[in-house]
Amino acid sequence: MKKKINIGLIGYGFMGRAHSNAYRRVNQFFDLDYEPVLKAACARKEDKLKVFAQNWGWKSIETDWKKLVGRDDIDVIDICTPNNLHHDIAIAAAEKGKIVFCEKPLAMNATEGGDILKAVKKTGVANLVWFNYRRVPAIALAKQIMNEDRLGRVFHYRAKYLQDWTINVDVPQGGATLWRLDADAAGSGVTGDLLAHSIDTAMWLIGEIDSVCAITETFVKERKLQEDPNTVKPVKIDDACAFLVKFKNGAIGTFESTRYARGRKNQNTFEVNGENASICFDLEDAHRLQYFDHGDDSHLQGWRSILVTDFEHPYMDHWWVPGCVIGYEHTFINALADFLMSLKTGEKYSPDIEEALKTQVVCDAVLSSAKNKSWEIVQYE
Amino acid sequence: MKKKINIGLIGYGFMGRAHSNAYRRVNQFFDLDYEPVLKAACARKEDKLKVFAQNWGWKSIETDWKKLVGRDDIDVIDICTPNNLHHDIAIAAAEKGKIVFCEKPLAMNATEGGDILKAVKKTGVANLVWFNYRRVPAIALAKQIMNEDRLGRVFHYRAKYLQDWTINVDVPQGGATLWRLDADAAGSGVTGDLLAHSIDTAMWLIGEIDSVCAITETFVKERKLQEDPNTVKPVKIDDACAFLVKFKNGAIGTFESTRYARGRKNQNTFEVNGENASICFDLEDAHRLQYFDHGDDSHLQGWRSILVTDFEHPYMDHWWVPGCVIGYEHTFINALADFLMSLKTGEKYSPDIEEALKTQVVCDAVLSSAKNKSWEIVQYE
Amino acid sequence: MKKKINIGLIGYGFMGRAHSNAYRRVNQFFDLDYEPVLKAACARKEDKLKVFAQNWGWKSIETDWKKLVGRDDIDVIDICTPNNLHHDIAIAAAEKGKIVFCEKPLAMNATEGGDILKAVKKTGVANLVWFNYRRVPAIALAKQIMNEDRLGRVFHYRAKYLQDWTINVDVPQGGATLWRLDADAAGSGVTGDLLAHSIDTAMWLIGEIDSVCAITETFVKERKLQEDPNTVKPVKIDDACAFLVKFKNGAIGTFESTRYARGRKNQNTFEVNGENASICFDLEDAHRLQYFDHGDDSHLQGWRSILVTDFEHPYMDHWWVPGCVIGYEHTFINALADFLMSLKTGEKYSPDIEEALKTQVVCDAVLSSAKNKSWEIVQYE
Amino acid sequence: MKKKINIGLIGYGFMGRAHSNAYRRVNQFFDLDYEPVLKAACARKEDKLKVFAQNWGWKSIETDWKKLVGRDDIDVIDICTPNNLHHDIAIAAAEKGKIVFCEKPLAMNATEGGDILKAVKKTGVANLVWFNYRRVPAIALAKQIMNEDRLGRVFHYRAKYLQDWTINVDVPQGGATLWRLDADAAGSGVTGDLLAHSIDTAMWLIGEIDSVCAITETFVKERKLQEDPNTVKPVKIDDACAFLVKFKNGAIGTFESTRYARGRKNQNTFEVNGENASICFDLEDAHRLQYFDHGDDSHLQGWRSILVTDFEHPYMDHWWVPGCVIGYEHTFINALADFLMSLKTGEKYSPDIEEALKTQVVCDAVLSSAKNKSWEIVQYE
Repeated sequence: MKKKINIGLIGYGFMGRAHSNAYRRVNQFFDLDYEPVLKAACARKEDKLKVFAQNWGWKSIETDWKKLVGRDDIDVIDICTPNNLHHDIAIAAAEKGKIVFCEKPLAMNATEGGDILKAVKKTGVANLVWFNYRRVPAIALAKQIMNEDRLGRVFHYRAKYLQDWTINVDVPQGGATLWRLDADAAGSGVTGDLLAHSIDTAMWLIGEIDSVCAITETFVKERKLQEDPNTVKPVKIDDACAFLVKFKNGAIGTFESTRYARGRKNQNTFEVNGENASICFDLEDAHRLQYFDHGDDSHLQGWRSILVTDFEHPYMDHWWVPGCVIGYEHTFINALADFLMSLKTGEKYSPDIEEALKTQVVCDAVLSSAKNKSWEIVQYE
Repeated sequence: MKKKINIGLIGYGFMGRAHSNAYRRVNQFFDLDYEPVLKAACARKEDKLKVFAQNWGWKSIETDWKKLVGRDDIDVIDICTPNNLHHDIAIAAAEKGKIVFCEKPLAMNATEGGDILKAVKKTGVANLVWFNYRRVPAIALAKQIMNEDRLGRVFHYRAKYLQDWTINVDVPQGGATLWRLDADAAGSGVTGDLLAHSIDTAMWLIGEIDSVCAITETFVKERKLQEDPNTVKPVKIDDACAFLVKFKNGAIGTFESTRYARGRKNQNTFEVNGENASICFDLEDAHRLQYFDHGDDSHLQGWRSILVTDFEHPYMDHWWVPGCVIGYEHTFINALADFLMSLKTGEKYSPDIEEALKTQVVCDAVLSSAKNKSWEIVQYE
Repeated sequence: MKKKINIGLIGYGFMGRAHSNAYRRVNQFFDLDYEPVLKAACARKEDKLKVFAQNWGWKSIETDWKKLVGRDDIDVIDICTPNNLHHDIAIAAAEKGKIVFCEKPLAMNATEGGDILKAVKKTGVANLVWFNYRRVPAIALAKQIMNEDRLGRVFHYRAKYLQDWTINVDVPQGGATLWRLDADAAGSGVTGDLLAHSIDTAMWLIGEIDSVCAITETFVKERKLQEDPNTVKPVKIDDACAFLVKFKNGAIGTFESTRYARGRKNQNTFEVNGENASICFDLEDAHRLQYFDHGDDSHLQGWRSILVTDFEHPYMDHWWVPGCVIGYEHTFINALADFLMSLKTGEKYSPDIEEALKTQVVCDAVLSSAKNKSWEIVQYE
Repeated sequence: MKKKINIGLIGYGFMGRAHSNAYRRVNQFFDLDYEPVLKAACARKEDKLKVFAQNWGWKSIETDWKKLVGRDDIDVIDICTPNNLHHDIAIAAAEKGKIVFCEKPLAMNATEGGDILKAVKKTGVANLVWFNYRRVPAIALAKQIMNEDRLGRVFHYRAKYLQDWTINVDVPQGGATLWRLDADAAGSGVTGDLLAHSIDTAMWLIGEIDSVCAITETFVKERKLQEDPNTVKPVKIDDACAFLVKFKNGAIGTFESTRYARGRKNQNTFEVNGENASICFDLEDAHRLQYFDHGDDSHLQGWRSILVTDFEHPYMDHWWVPGCVIGYEHTFINALADFLMSLKTGEKYSPDIEEALKTQVVCDAVLSSAKNKSWEIVQYE
């Protein structure tokens, strides 16, 4: 008999959907001791919330997150709100002894993130931050290759995360679906939203970042408000951000993100160049990993396009058959399965809030560097 | 309030899983009047069936398909058995007035298929054959492009369906998971299993096939039995099949399938060359469609790699956001949604048994042509 | 001191240019005992010939090929004329003891080709047929991989040669630059012009073809004449041709060629699937070879995209540096260098007229099969 | 009758070969008033020089460049020496009224480059710097697209130039073929050798760079000398360099180059993202340009892979037929043709020394920024 674990979800947007889907499906594909129960969904707009809860099978609803956090029948608080609420909810949840699931980025900034970490450490609750891309099978395979030490000394890392959905000046800011363009709700623009993913992946694969030097740009200087189209306000987020990196292990890196790269929809890429081998990934071809091995016979060396759908590839023995791909949503299911397995084994789930805070620290350093037009040493403590 | 539609599923293999998943998820992503209920799952091995039913939430089980077909609380019989059972089950289900869902290929041969069609026509039950690849968004986009008449006169069609999982001579034949290698259970090899998909897609896009000329080959002449490894028996299926085609509209085509194409996992491809434009697809890059438009400015003509994840692309407004792909399993969900919609609108679902029979007729002509080493005119009636 | 070898070239079209270029350049990139001298160019239109000869440095001109063949100061007759002249010129040249270079296809048909072979055998003159694509470094690498026996048993071969330049019905036929559309000058359409390349490559890599079954089509039934635009005549060539193949070693193959594949400019492709490895090539990415090796660690298997520009790759040590590609014209230079080397070593140059005749025999069988709508056993003797 | 233009070439290395080839071939493919004559080749090692001159048909040799520059029968001095000689030779040549051809980078630094510019301006001699990649047809097409203003406002530029040939620590430095690793001969490492190309292309397409912020790294700290393998010396060049850019038009950019990117042979790439369209190029697929046009019908938008081999593409009407690629060496021939045409028309050839100096100024700012760990405004005057 599986152990029930009661979920309380806050937020019913894009991430609310993706997480709901994960809770409903994980046990059909993974053999786990734990089974999530969709206990309660929470958001302020009751009418829309009801539709959402009905659709996904949430057993109850709340319109005040504090009430949800206060409920005894909830084991996990899953935070899918705009970033400006992460801090208060996560701390309240931790204080109540709830397991904390938090969407990325961890918080508005590292100070907030530090508070959260302190709170979860104090009560010792298990926790997870949804850097879901680590659970793309091809990215997990990249990690496996790094762990197998096939690259040797690493010289270079380069990451891009390019989109194009804000080029149109008529896209408004703020509101329910466009809070990512509102600095008050999001904290930052592409840095927190997209580069946080890139940084998380990079530090997972390569190790800690020593120092950064960044440039940011806001191409469209003002936008109307989504919820009040007659009001035009300055745009305070970073539309684009690029930075140079020195890793602690001596490798150097380049990172770039924008929502103004016409033709790039969700192009999250990275490349690692090592002494003996290289790896390259592009989320727009999510089920492939490119791999170059200098150990191959010299006349037959080439970038291998690995179709990451075989049973021996990470996660793929849980899904269909070789040649059949999984999609975006499965990254959340894979992550949830790993977390539920960690509950059983007692091993630390990664990335947790402690790791996510390091990513936040790097984000802060990036934004500070861009502001000061100077290199910044990343201060993790 | 949604109308419940009670499903009785026969077979718990690969397709049994894929369909179960579809029944559970379709209403969370599509706004439909109908809601499938996972009423009963049926298979002969009770112990394994129980595990399966538990996992997917089937409310009851049966070990005799005749009993399932006889139950009054079942609206749909979904046939996921080896091909040699399609005929009897489908006819029995139709006679009982059940909606018939049938995995492809329709039957062991066109004679059987004709019987099935007669049965469903007699009682007028709605029906569907799971040629799921029509619901790959990129393939649906190809159909849309054809419907928009962007290609003009069609000259060429070429299809491949390549896999490599039977090269190893130690792969056994027959049994629960390898019945596709047993001619008695499957009817044929790659022709019914893989080329049926290619033919279905081709006739959907281009129109009826006039005549064919084929070659088949069985590379590994004998294999041990999966359920009795000490017994070695001749292999009677076609390991590979290639054929030339003349379409009724004057286009010519090539088709090929094999399970001996080292390095190809599920490479289901097609290309259409028209007077004004061309289309190219590869299931191993399922979320992309290649499109060449001769109407582009001449110095800027090139094959466009369309990332089929935007809201305006077929089906994609039901899923996530642009740049986020869906996977193999979603083709079944999309198909099911279309069927449930057709129940409401009364429009014919496509492909139904009538269309699948035509594909079966072509498969028969292909096998006959290979046997007779001659061109065969396809006789649809 | 290099030995001079005096060339007499017949024809100043596309191939005349490509060969002239090869004669002028080969000694700058290859260390050879022989040095071609551009002794005489021959064609009927004196004014254009003079311009051509001047441009390329041909030392003299002739307007009658018989006179050229009769000259004592000519060592090599290089035939770049329409196909209907190959027979007479090659035989006359052989009878005069000249080395014979002949553009592909060898002749109008195998009967003519047999006459040519008889003539060159009689006088024992060295000879070459310009199947230049064998000297694409990536194709030569494919041959090397076959020679290294990395594939094991070969199951499949598939070749395409697709172009799109005759879709427009206003393209005329015949004349100086469009004789390839005139059956009287070319013998056949895509079969002799394009598939001859595909067949040559296939038999080089795989071995002899046992039998074929073909379909041909002429999409545009009549065209005006290039040299008399007011006259419209039936088109007698094959616009497209596809055929099935059984190789003598048991492999099966598919071949297709057309000039009606919108968007394909010079897409000469082949793929070989063997037990242990596969190879794939596309002339539109001429400097790459795709290679899949089942011997790679299982989680790291993938198609390698080999950039064939390293010093250890065929021919590339004669050219620039790794990463710097060569182009179309270099295939002729590489071929010429190999021939001149064979003059020194006495080894047979490949492909010579004897091999080219086999390709011609296959072409004839293909056309005959298409006409008779039946399989044909290829009769090489 | 063509006007002869007598070339004096200094240096017989990789570039000496590439230029010699260009001089010999340009008139066979371009209809020009001028014809280069390979008058004299110059280098210090007479024995090797003789072999080189013989191979390429240089009519005479010199072992002292000053003597060459002093010869009255020389019209052009073409400088293919290590970078530390560019300054003295170029100035001497200009003072003698010779046309100056100079390999890139222009000089060891901008100060030297400024001297050269002053000298050529003083005597008004025509001049050219061999940034050959501008004459890759696909890059020229990119420029054409920019000129046609298809992109609208430009947001982003990103360039990489990656190689991997110095990873092995046993590669020596200095000497005839490895002077690029010796800072005394080369001035810098990848910045002058590779990034100079990237910068030249970027400013040609986008306009002037306003400011830069760079990081450089030397991964292998010491290497033996090529000409004295028992001596090990510190490596003073930049093995890798990455920098951020702000363009004067407001676009932001990233640039990176290294010789430590395992698996990248000559991966010179750039991408431009504009409001309405984007462009992407990779020298390892030199004959293709990727183009995304937001003006395409929305469901058919995709990156077009333009095969730049049609007659309407830049330079390609001079070469073969559509689908037939040219290679690395042709970029020099195209450049030379353009220069010889400019002699006739009197239009300024681009890039000349004045433009190359701007690139040099940016290179200097990059190196200075890396040294000072700060942003640098580029000072062109």
